[in-house]
Amino acid sequence: MANTQFGDAELGKVKSPSCIFCHGTDGTASNPTYPNIKGQNAQYLFQSMKDYQDGNRQGALAEMMKAQLSRLNDEDLKDIAAYFSSQK
Amino acid sequence: MANTQFGDAELGKVKSPSCIFCHGTDGTASNPTYPNIKGQNAQYLFQSMKDYQDGNRQGALAEMMKAQLSRLNDEDLKDIAAYFSSQK
Repeated sequence: MANTQFGDAELGKVKSPSCIFCHGTDGTASNPTYPNIKGQNAQYLFQSMKDYQDGNRQGALAEMMKAQLSRLNDEDLKDIAAYFSSQK
Repeated sequence: MANTQFGDAELGKVKSPSCIFCHGTDGTASNPTYPNIKGQNAQYLFQSMKDYQDGNRQGALAEMMKAQLSRLNDEDLKDIAAYFSSQK
């Protein structure tokens, strides 16, 4: 379950300035209705972000997430996934 | 972020026999493409399960999750959410 070879956590930190407002600087959510993402499996985080981009997730906060992720490509998403996955 | 008054973790353990095959007996996923759910915010877990039930999540595994959750009511989902949220 190594996160090696799936994204670059250092780059991910640079690419995720807006994530921290809801998911916290250490991946711990600021609100109990949001998910903690620290230590989450990177491949799952990546697929979740793809699902928001692709419209596979609907509901109250899905449009916001889709907008937040709109300018990020797959490499960006992998880097961001690696960053939050690496957090303890 | 207390999980008190949101579901009954003891009941949740009894109600979640099928969850463990993918999410692990301790909430650690058996596959890196699945999410770890131990210690996750209970309210978020509840809403995620509601989103699967309501068809707000689509994609590769969403139909399976919807089927798994089809016989559970809101109280069941809250109990299950409380159970996995309480895991370390």
